[in-house]
Amino acid sequence: MSTTLTEKKMPEPRNGVDTPTLLATINAVGAQPELAQFRFRAVNRWQQGTHSRTRIQSFYGAGGEQMHEREFIYGADHPTVLVGRDQAPTPVEFLLHALASCLTAGIGNIAAARGVTLHEVESTLEGDIDLQGILGLSDRVRNGYRSIRATFTIKGDAPAEKLAQIVEQSHKRSAVYDVITNGLPVEIVVNAR
Amino acid sequence: MSTTLTEKKMPEPRNGVDTPTLLATINAVGAQPELAQFRFRAVNRWQQGTHSRTRIQSFYGAGGEQMHEREFIYGADHPTVLVGRDQAPTPVEFLLHALASCLTAGIGNIAAARGVTLHEVESTLEGDIDLQGILGLSDRVRNGYRSIRATFTIKGDAPAEKLAQIVEQSHKRSAVYDVITNGLPVEIVVNAR
Repeated sequence: MSTTLTEKKMPEPRNGVDTPTLLATINAVGAQPELAQFRFRAVNRWQQGTHSRTRIQSFYGAGGEQMHEREFIYGADHPTVLVGRDQAPTPVEFLLHALASCLTAGIGNIAAARGVTLHEVESTLEGDIDLQGILGLSDRVRNGYRSIRATFTIKGDAPAEKLAQIVEQSHKRSAVYDVITNGLPVEIVVNAR
Repeated sequence: MSTTLTEKKMPEPRNGVDTPTLLATINAVGAQPELAQFRFRAVNRWQQGTHSRTRIQSFYGAGGEQMHEREFIYGADHPTVLVGRDQAPTPVEFLLHALASCLTAGIGNIAAARGVTLHEVESTLEGDIDLQGILGLSDRVRNGYRSIRATFTIKGDAPAEKLAQIVEQSHKRSAVYDVITNGLPVEIVVNAR
């Protein structure tokens, strides 16, 4: 990837991306792949009913323990129509946030690496779900979304085709898109008292 | 499911769950499955670099358009070690929040339906990821997490075995657990200008 990039114009900061540092980071990780091993963490605590809160701060990566600049705390709940108290969005809406923000972060980086200045990136995500699954009413209905659609509007100083290619490359290299389209093993351990 | 539940003790509000209304809702949806069709939405807007913000408010379900009681807005960003500005957690950390909160909402509901009073539910989630994938350094490394572990501590007025069964049932009926372990199709549409 670095070879391809250096064949293009010299990288410069763009779209709020420190492009030279981004490319230097990619090169550093290429030379020392153990720096690429990351472990992200979240600690969730039940509040009441369907309401819980998650704290996010520490993670491992780049060869050592890291901390976000501050602790981030997010609630999640069910809406009143699903007998929750609507203290926060539902868990499945946070999936849409994770997917949209991962694709959009990739668009910011890829555009900068390709020398494209972005003017606007907006996306609307919709996920269809039949709640007969989670309500235990049908074993033929899956619990999760059956499909998700993401519609992007992207504007920048490049031809439409090049802008569309940036969006395409972003999903080819998106961590959340990979998880949501391909799945992965989840291990659950329980300490009950 | 309602038959099984009515064989047990009469449902009463518990753990902050309005159990009678929850069971009535399940029965209503069982009688009229079109009420179970939901569509959740999120609108994301790029800010700069890897930072974007998502607005969540409207959704379709229970036979009509619904609104959360207020609009919820969340950022996402990359940390400075990944050349972001750390304005918010990463998209992959929001995946952990979605998974933890979905399992925990299920635990709250299932415990109430089974007549178990919960004292505490806490979970720590960890996801392992090799960033050589998203950095384009290796085609043999996937972009997303290779594995996630969720460790639950659950305390309540039931034997440990019964508490553990509640956690087990929660992942058998979790929308986010299903998405993350099984995946689903994502369609991406691009309007480039």
